[in-house]
Amino acid sequence: MTGQTTPGEFDLIRHYILNATKQRDDVVLGVGDDCALLNIPPGQQLAVSMDTLVAGRHFIPNVDPTSLGHKTLAVNLSDLAAMGATPAWATLSLTLPAAGATWQNWLGQFMQGFQGLAKQYQVQLVGGDTTRGPLSITAQVHGFIEPGQALRRDTAAIGDKIYVSGTLGDAGLALRDQQGQYKLSESERRILIPRLNNPTPRIALGIKLKGLAHAAIDISDGLGADLSHICTASGVGAIIQAQQIPLSETVQHYVQKTAEWNLPVSAGDDYELIFTVPKAQQTAVLQAVHSVSVPIACIGQITADQTVKMILPDGNTHPLGSGYDHFQ
Amino acid sequence: MTGQTTPGEFDLIRHYILNATKQRDDVVLGVGDDCALLNIPPGQQLAVSMDTLVAGRHFIPNVDPTSLGHKTLAVNLSDLAAMGATPAWATLSLTLPAAGATWQNWLGQFMQGFQGLAKQYQVQLVGGDTTRGPLSITAQVHGFIEPGQALRRDTAAIGDKIYVSGTLGDAGLALRDQQGQYKLSESERRILIPRLNNPTPRIALGIKLKGLAHAAIDISDGLGADLSHICTASGVGAIIQAQQIPLSETVQHYVQKTAEWNLPVSAGDDYELIFTVPKAQQTAVLQAVHSVSVPIACIGQITADQTVKMILPDGNTHPLGSGYDHFQ
Repeated sequence: MTGQTTPGEFDLIRHYILNATKQRDDVVLGVGDDCALLNIPPGQQLAVSMDTLVAGRHFIPNVDPTSLGHKTLAVNLSDLAAMGATPAWATLSLTLPAAGATWQNWLGQFMQGFQGLAKQYQVQLVGGDTTRGPLSITAQVHGFIEPGQALRRDTAAIGDKIYVSGTLGDAGLALRDQQGQYKLSESERRILIPRLNNPTPRIALGIKLKGLAHAAIDISDGLGADLSHICTASGVGAIIQAQQIPLSETVQHYVQKTAEWNLPVSAGDDYELIFTVPKAQQTAVLQAVHSVSVPIACIGQITADQTVKMILPDGNTHPLGSGYDHFQ
Repeated sequence: MTGQTTPGEFDLIRHYILNATKQRDDVVLGVGDDCALLNIPPGQQLAVSMDTLVAGRHFIPNVDPTSLGHKTLAVNLSDLAAMGATPAWATLSLTLPAAGATWQNWLGQFMQGFQGLAKQYQVQLVGGDTTRGPLSITAQVHGFIEPGQALRRDTAAIGDKIYVSGTLGDAGLALRDQQGQYKLSESERRILIPRLNNPTPRIALGIKLKGLAHAAIDISDGLGADLSHICTASGVGAIIQAQQIPLSETVQHYVQKTAEWNLPVSAGDDYELIFTVPKAQQTAVLQAVHSVSVPIACIGQITADQTVKMILPDGNTHPLGSGYDHFQ
């Protein structure tokens, strides 16, 4: 909580952050000193992840600030979920274009979204920074995991089944609606816009998968790109069946109408998990996941040939690259 | 290391960050997965601090990138120094205006400065993000400290002597030179510009002070503002003697010429430490600090009256506020 801030910025921090979160017993010293002081439980490793959201690139500048606060923490918690880690603390750096009532109001709403989600996962905001400049947000999350239990990218094995959680392409279709490229009905919008603006980090699922799944990643860049990250890190390939990809009714309708698989495969921003499961653990995984109400679907298999491919409904095979615009 | 990055940005990260730092034994998994996985030594607390630097506010956009890389890490390490913590890991989020050769070159130089300082303090870069947008940098540092040993802001006691390290106002005068408000000679510039662009975090001093000093803070906002932070947090006041403030020859000359104490008291960006020492520990502190070649000077005393004041050379008393522009 340092840097060349003005007294006004200190006030903003004090007002919205200092008194904001439920205290955790493992926070010795939170916001307000040069550093936060934190206790790690004995026998646990620390998992950390940092993400930045920039106005005009990751969100439209006039996005609802409450949703943006939620999403800022959600995309970071999603990285903990992808490792199977249990969330504990967050730090937050906010760069705001100006001071004054408008931005104080904006910040109040942003913090409401951020802290609302933080509360759900017993996450305490322990530090950060506030600066003046083009609107941008960086957050870091910190979680715990037992040694050797983390779900990594580099541990997929040939023959593993590939699973995804939830449905894919919802956030991408909502974005196209908001950008005027596609028109959703009001009832479709009510379902899909929250998938874009208020994603749910799959924390409970990740925790259930640790020690059972081989490799995992969260889908931020798109199924093709993120599955490629797993395959590259693990030195393997993958083949998936397009028709096995779980789709919401609206996205299913869209794909039927357009025959365009780019949306569920490459749009990204869904923050679902992809994970690979050895055949021997499939039953155990299905049992473990049963208690968390997140649907999972098997969409393919890890292969030896180091390419990532998708079999389309017409039987043709299509390569899936690592770039999220690969299909376009 | 997630977010909607393009393949080009992933390449930048891979090239400059993945292979960049010496590996520490306590890093189980560094850059390249959803999270870094880290081991905290048993019996140690984790100290974390995050700072953001924005182009046009914290640095001029055409500043030497190597210096900026150094300064990004230095201002963060300075927060660990102010707590007495031993540095361990860093995360780094870079927002760059564009890709291409110019920015690849810029990033190479930036990382050279960042990693050069990281190496000095055995700090390993373990994660972060790269995004496209207005030039801005956020870094977080992580260090260790024994429970109960941290130098906090809220522990100054009435009667404590107030010390500062190094000399104050150097960075401020260098900034005025760079902004054309004051003209340094070439020999003065050689000494003062590095004080602005390549500050030295007082890590060794902070470690020596832990368990001996009462309260500490690093001077980022200026002596008046940062001493006020200590006093506010501790519920005390302070009185300092202007003539006891350690000044470099150039700043001394400037103050004599202009009779303007704003520079050493309010300019900030010096990243020296202010700390308070109970009378009984003064000898122990002087002995402990002797082995680190950082000069320290006693400039005043903590008082009961909850105001922060400075006695000027003419005998007049001047209030020191919490805003860093208070004097202007």
